[in-house]
Amino acid sequence: MSEKKLRIAVDMDEVIADPIAKFIKLYNRDYDVPLDLTITPGNEMAMHVPEHARLKIREYINEKGFFRDLDVIPDSVEVMKELQKKYEVFIVSAAMEFPNSLQDKHEWLADHFPFIGWQHIMFCGYKIVNTDIMIDDRIKNFVDYEGRKLLFTSPHNMLLTDYERVNNWNEVAEKLL
Amino acid sequence: MSEKKLRIAVDMDEVIADPIAKFIKLYNRDYDVPLDLTITPGNEMAMHVPEHARLKIREYINEKGFFRDLDVIPDSVEVMKELQKKYEVFIVSAAMEFPNSLQDKHEWLADHFPFIGWQHIMFCGYKIVNTDIMIDDRIKNFVDYEGRKLLFTSPHNMLLTDYERVNNWNEVAEKLL
Repeated sequence: MSEKKLRIAVDMDEVIADPIAKFIKLYNRDYDVPLDLTITPGNEMAMHVPEHARLKIREYINEKGFFRDLDVIPDSVEVMKELQKKYEVFIVSAAMEFPNSLQDKHEWLADHFPFIGWQHIMFCGYKIVNTDIMIDDRIKNFVDYEGRKLLFTSPHNMLLTDYERVNNWNEVAEKLL
Repeated sequence: MSEKKLRIAVDMDEVIADPIAKFIKLYNRDYDVPLDLTITPGNEMAMHVPEHARLKIREYINEKGFFRDLDVIPDSVEVMKELQKKYEVFIVSAAMEFPNSLQDKHEWLADHFPFIGWQHIMFCGYKIVNTDIMIDDRIKNFVDYEGRKLLFTSPHNMLLTDYERVNNWNEVAEKLL
């Protein structure tokens, strides 16, 4: 492990992988009503759907296969490759919350980010990582973290103002490369 | 996450789970010769078998199911339960080296350590964890780690003298409880 490069912890869901597009696709399939997350920004996914459909959101995410075919967040592959030249880049996902996702997420990473070796992949609960920078869409992961925090924009965090924010991977590149 | 309790990172293989007993069982099944690891302490598993059998060791460990039914290291469950009252206890396993192990290890933990919640389980490569204490049988995991290191005795590390050593879980209890 290089001593010289700064370390970055990069989250998966809503940062390099897009579960929201998949939620919307499944919801539209099952309920046949359009789901638009921009109407009330700052809310969790489950708050965008009628009450009777909220459990369904949890059901989707626990199904084997849900995480296997997620879209890649635009430009994340290209920027991650560049980051890797300058930093030691770790993927840090709170995958333990959804045990059925472990294999899916591992295979997804092998497909889309084969340049990240097994030494730099971490599936965890609490993100007690010793890195210099963290890119994440969930501020709960910043609470106990002492490094530089970059909040990656996602519908649920759009109303938060107390964090250094990156809206997309081009902004990550501007800040870190 | 409690701010007050010290955090401990506890390794899985050769600390709470026993892959060596399983290796020996499979080896004896396939080669019909007894395998005794005490003859030349300080060696890796593969060095205890004839050259033609070394690849087999790697094959065993990569097979789905290998990690699913490992024996529990004696007294680890009881001592871990006690540790949890005083410390914040994390399971930290370098499981990413063996992707087929992810589900097996998760299910094994649910069977034997159900009192460790998903927030406190981490499957990783490099152990870049922010904890106060680490219990591990591999000194490579201590290299970049600044907390207190407890080397859990295993055949491969028996000749090392530069580390604070625990030979079993009763010694862990004596030191930490």
